[in-house]
Amino acid sequence: MQDWSHARRMERKTIGCVPTMGAFHRGHLSLIEASASDCDETIVTIFVNPLQFSPTEDFRQYPRNEESDLKLARENGATAAYCPTVDAMYYPDRSVYVIEDTLKEVLCGKSRPTHFAGVTTVVAKLFNACLPDRAYFGRKDYQQLLIIRRMVRDLDFPLEIVDCPIIREPDGLAMSSRNMYLGDKERQDALSLKQALDAARTAFDKGERNARAIENIARSVIEKAETARIDYIECRDAGNLSEVIDIDRPVVLALAVSIGSTRLIDNIILNPGKEG
Amino acid sequence: MQDWSHARRMERKTIGCVPTMGAFHRGHLSLIEASASDCDETIVTIFVNPLQFSPTEDFRQYPRNEESDLKLARENGATAAYCPTVDAMYYPDRSVYVIEDTLKEVLCGKSRPTHFAGVTTVVAKLFNACLPDRAYFGRKDYQQLLIIRRMVRDLDFPLEIVDCPIIREPDGLAMSSRNMYLGDKERQDALSLKQALDAARTAFDKGERNARAIENIARSVIEKAETARIDYIECRDAGNLSEVIDIDRPVVLALAVSIGSTRLIDNIILNPGKEG
Repeated sequence: MQDWSHARRMERKTIGCVPTMGAFHRGHLSLIEASASDCDETIVTIFVNPLQFSPTEDFRQYPRNEESDLKLARENGATAAYCPTVDAMYYPDRSVYVIEDTLKEVLCGKSRPTHFAGVTTVVAKLFNACLPDRAYFGRKDYQQLLIIRRMVRDLDFPLEIVDCPIIREPDGLAMSSRNMYLGDKERQDALSLKQALDAARTAFDKGERNARAIENIARSVIEKAETARIDYIECRDAGNLSEVIDIDRPVVLALAVSIGSTRLIDNIILNPGKEG
Repeated sequence: MQDWSHARRMERKTIGCVPTMGAFHRGHLSLIEASASDCDETIVTIFVNPLQFSPTEDFRQYPRNEESDLKLARENGATAAYCPTVDAMYYPDRSVYVIEDTLKEVLCGKSRPTHFAGVTTVVAKLFNACLPDRAYFGRKDYQQLLIIRRMVRDLDFPLEIVDCPIIREPDGLAMSSRNMYLGDKERQDALSLKQALDAARTAFDKGERNARAIENIARSVIEKAETARIDYIECRDAGNLSEVIDIDRPVVLALAVSIGSTRLIDNIILNPGKEG
């Protein structure tokens, strides 16, 4: 992979990288399209990374469709794919990790304490393998996006992070490879995430600026969904995830909810400096 | 720095990097010479890295001679220097680190528990800033060398680590920027490190293969030096620093000794597969 990227760089091609765990939906495809429209070459990486799953999580059952993913990647503008095996990525005696120790203390990091170290470690490796000029990440994984931006800043990776909007199903559910785990009743209940965020946005647009009130509005929507169990619903500073009492700066309203045994996340940005 | 390195790479120049904390002695100069003879361009980095000093260590008094260092670097073949300030290297809200969690458990890592995380973090940053094809490190800091090799392997850094021999004063003392801290009596006692290693090598050459016996031979030499206080003297596997009982594979005999308040390290490789 490095040789290929080196050779492209020597031809003065710009390289975009879209790191994924495969099981593509339109969210992934939008990242590939964004890269293909910005860069001469687009590398899609497909790697279900064991390091970012805890032993109780869904590493084994995580959906894998490499063949159809590669076809979709090509159709949407990817010019290369990097699909390493677990053995190729991790030596049995591996001992070096990239860790982030502040932003990961809140939100998903609380219930998934080892998750983000797995993410930063694998993304650092993918960056070193693919040597991109730009790397593309979705805003659905908002905390991940901030942590990767922080990693690029703090370790001086020679590349730019581009973030892309959340892509949703027609009924509002944020696209996720895990949506396919949902049964019919759960699929219906999963709509409560977006409905909760919409209700919070409506209150915000009407002038509500108290972060706890906004969270409670969202919470009350989700509590009506029978199969939903809330992990967190929190308004936090959109730049550094610090606590917010009054929304006097841009915040992310982020939530994680288990629908049955499927954990889903979603978020919106509430920006008091911007109308609508 | 990245722009300079990118431009050189586009000209198909190979780049060598010699990361240092300055205060050059002939050890540093040998690394610069090695790089200059291998590579089209040689970047010397000079940065006294606060992250690798504990609060009780000598960060403030660590010798700094940037002007004369730069002159020496140029004279020995360096074509660029990277001398960032602490503020340029570390944001006040930095939160991302590169850690190694196995090799650092022994030898120097035991008495300097945060040292190697500081080293791996800064070296990762220097690699990303300088984008070298090769980076040069001395074997005096043997554990550091292994940890940096491990980092390059585990994080897929696109470069090669080249290790260079220990350079010694005519009387045997391994070159170190910290040697200048030594008073006259201490300078004399500091010779006991090399004498201890020589005594151990002599015993090894005569057939001694018991690791504890080898350590004890070295220990007894150092114990005769009045101002010396031993931190550790240990035979360990030269590849992964695991424990060794019988020397049936290459080992490093490594030691750390405080001479007065100056902590010095040195080591030799004992290789049973090789005569002499």
